[in-house]
Amino acid sequence: MASVNPPRGMRDFLPAEKARRESVLAVIRERYRAHGFDEIETPVMEEYSRLHAGIGGDNEKLAYNVLKRGLDADAVRAAADDPAGLTDLGLRYDLTVPLARFYATNRGQLPSVFRSIQIAPVWRAERPQKGRYRQFVQCDIDIIGDASARAEAELAVATLDTLDALGLEGGSIRINDRRVLDWMLDSFGFAADERPGVLITIDKLDKLGPDGIVAELRERGATPGAVDAFAAFLRRPTTLEYNPYGERQIRKALPDGAPDDIVAHLAGIGSAVAAARASGIEGDIPLVFDPFLVRGMGYYTGTIFELAHPSVDYSLGGGGRYDGMIGRFLGQEVPAVGFSIGFERIVDLVQERKDAAAPAVVLVHDRDVAEGELLALKASLVGRGSRVRLEQRTKNLKALLERAASDGYTAFATVGAGTTADALEVKPLS
Amino acid sequence: MASVNPPRGMRDFLPAEKARRESVLAVIRERYRAHGFDEIETPVMEEYSRLHAGIGGDNEKLAYNVLKRGLDADAVRAAADDPAGLTDLGLRYDLTVPLARFYATNRGQLPSVFRSIQIAPVWRAERPQKGRYRQFVQCDIDIIGDASARAEAELAVATLDTLDALGLEGGSIRINDRRVLDWMLDSFGFAADERPGVLITIDKLDKLGPDGIVAELRERGATPGAVDAFAAFLRRPTTLEYNPYGERQIRKALPDGAPDDIVAHLAGIGSAVAAARASGIEGDIPLVFDPFLVRGMGYYTGTIFELAHPSVDYSLGGGGRYDGMIGRFLGQEVPAVGFSIGFERIVDLVQERKDAAAPAVVLVHDRDVAEGELLALKASLVGRGSRVRLEQRTKNLKALLERAASDGYTAFATVGAGTTADALEVKPLS
Repeated sequence: MASVNPPRGMRDFLPAEKARRESVLAVIRERYRAHGFDEIETPVMEEYSRLHAGIGGDNEKLAYNVLKRGLDADAVRAAADDPAGLTDLGLRYDLTVPLARFYATNRGQLPSVFRSIQIAPVWRAERPQKGRYRQFVQCDIDIIGDASARAEAELAVATLDTLDALGLEGGSIRINDRRVLDWMLDSFGFAADERPGVLITIDKLDKLGPDGIVAELRERGATPGAVDAFAAFLRRPTTLEYNPYGERQIRKALPDGAPDDIVAHLAGIGSAVAAARASGIEGDIPLVFDPFLVRGMGYYTGTIFELAHPSVDYSLGGGGRYDGMIGRFLGQEVPAVGFSIGFERIVDLVQERKDAAAPAVVLVHDRDVAEGELLALKASLVGRGSRVRLEQRTKNLKALLERAASDGYTAFATVGAGTTADALEVKPLS
Repeated sequence: MASVNPPRGMRDFLPAEKARRESVLAVIRERYRAHGFDEIETPVMEEYSRLHAGIGGDNEKLAYNVLKRGLDADAVRAAADDPAGLTDLGLRYDLTVPLARFYATNRGQLPSVFRSIQIAPVWRAERPQKGRYRQFVQCDIDIIGDASARAEAELAVATLDTLDALGLEGGSIRINDRRVLDWMLDSFGFAADERPGVLITIDKLDKLGPDGIVAELRERGATPGAVDAFAAFLRRPTTLEYNPYGERQIRKALPDGAPDDIVAHLAGIGSAVAAARASGIEGDIPLVFDPFLVRGMGYYTGTIFELAHPSVDYSLGGGGRYDGMIGRFLGQEVPAVGFSIGFERIVDLVQERKDAAAPAVVLVHDRDVAEGELLALKASLVGRGSRVRLEQRTKNLKALLERAASDGYTAFATVGAGTTADALEVKPLS
């Protein structure tokens, strides 16, 4: 017999937790829509060949693949050496590969600059560990068809506004550009084929510190002169703090001679965000240029971001520009940039809010109340806007009411035989 | 290269359609919650052995099964004759099997009578045809732990109220009881092992008419005397119309001597619904007793329902009592009854409603407007509660605005260089 638990690494959501998740998702959806993004949906499955085209990086290895239907034993044996014979579909491991496919499929029906929202689960067969799940929700916004810095600014403003609306004020976005990293490593003297390994080490700067990463680069046998130049740059007296984000600060944070077009694009994001935040949406511009921000995915071609919040020391989301990807699907270059917030991390930070509307009422009834009477009482409360749960009185009334409170009920009333709607006394569940 | 389409039989949802679906789901979720049901969520995958335990009927054959991770060619060959060696998980084909597993897992944390909402996709590898999809959404409510007719009445009232809230007034529920069918076939003289075949034929009454099903029963070689008795009963002068639903009418619709307890249970549903509909929620009791209603699933043990609406000649949903199922998972009998509405059918019937809130505005801007100015204008409208999309002016302004209108935008404004928020003229998109 099967185990009584959900599959390994996957979760059931009970009423209170499900309600919390849905209320957070409703805020995210509403804010993203207000900023002109439109929600779309794709099937949870995509073709195997699309999910394994090298775009998904390490996630491709973590994909759940779906067995072809109607295979007999001979067909299975024949396919033993070729997974594509056994499987034709897989569950998506991110929302970016499906978005690129969606855009290629439907571009004729989409605006020239398409701003999408995707709020949906993805699946990865990761080794289960605390805080890592095999099914989890991602919330992505993407802008396809705009190569300008305005696209990055729209994403940043929408993301920060959403964080504010969730009661998580004070968020900030760390920004870099993949081309900055490439140029910088080049200027230090690293060879092009050393780059991926060097970036993996730089990505550990927060953890290892400047001395730690220099040591690791030497251990890995990176070009010694380049490591020296890098070490000298890391030791220079400077601050990478924002204040203010802008061209001058970006140039100060980089070696001399950074390419004008990349610096202008980065600075342009800042001025556009400043313009947006100065009017309807209040606040400063919470952008921080970080020349050592790396981000894992191989498909990024330009700007990369990460979302930070003072209450936690891990990132709450991230994204970047992936101008090359749509072209691989469509055979025609289309600029694209996206930002994904880590819903599973954010939902734990958000404080629960009580609905201010009509009370949610538990009707605790004696055993002998006629069913018709009970349903009439329930209907009268539902008709006045309340949410209503019926519960037969148990010996431990306190436990019953506590459970109802944890499910979001705010009031209760007791019902005996003959209790009328007028006589019903609704008391708050404190 | 993979095809540019979504997988066969599955759909992309573009912004306008996705918004329509979400707004219908929001109404369903809100109404079901008001009636005291609580939403839960389970993973999309369940263990293979659970999905193939014989409960899912024909749907088991349609399940998508997930390949075990990390199988090498030898392991595949070894598993060729035993699917359980190749696959350990599958995508759910309904929401009832996962609910039974969920209840078994979490019963210690649930109220003694548990009223659940599940709104979620399911997957079936059906032959694609018009109106049939391989991924589709089901909306189920279930009551676990209440054997009384009140449970059926709560489901019926919540379902009809939800239909009303969607603007689909005039729905009705056809009701029967599996035990009525069993007793009736028994009383006509059919043998117990003939029952499944006879029920399949009776299920075609709407299509074939009384003479057609009698002919089919004779062709199938059913017990001749029993077919004669059934034919005589079908020809008796009577009406199966409701008006009023109640014990007298139920007895009139059945052969003489129907078991008292079953008739009382059916009549009890009617009186409880009448009590509920007479107060807060207005209207008559739209229940119709139909002694020839069958419903396909083998797990039903008592009441069965189907949701009808005058605008269509197919059912909009259905359900029934499945008192035996939870026991198979839990090893302890627990009464259960559920009602599933066919979301994909209902969403097509619901008229779109316009939000009465702040207008959704398309800002059509000239090419030379500074990015900062544009984002400041957008922010000022977002701050006032509008949803805002930026669009660069194209030669065919009309087409641009038509597309925006189809995505739910209700107003537009044109922006030139130097346009300020005060000078912005927002006009309705008619």
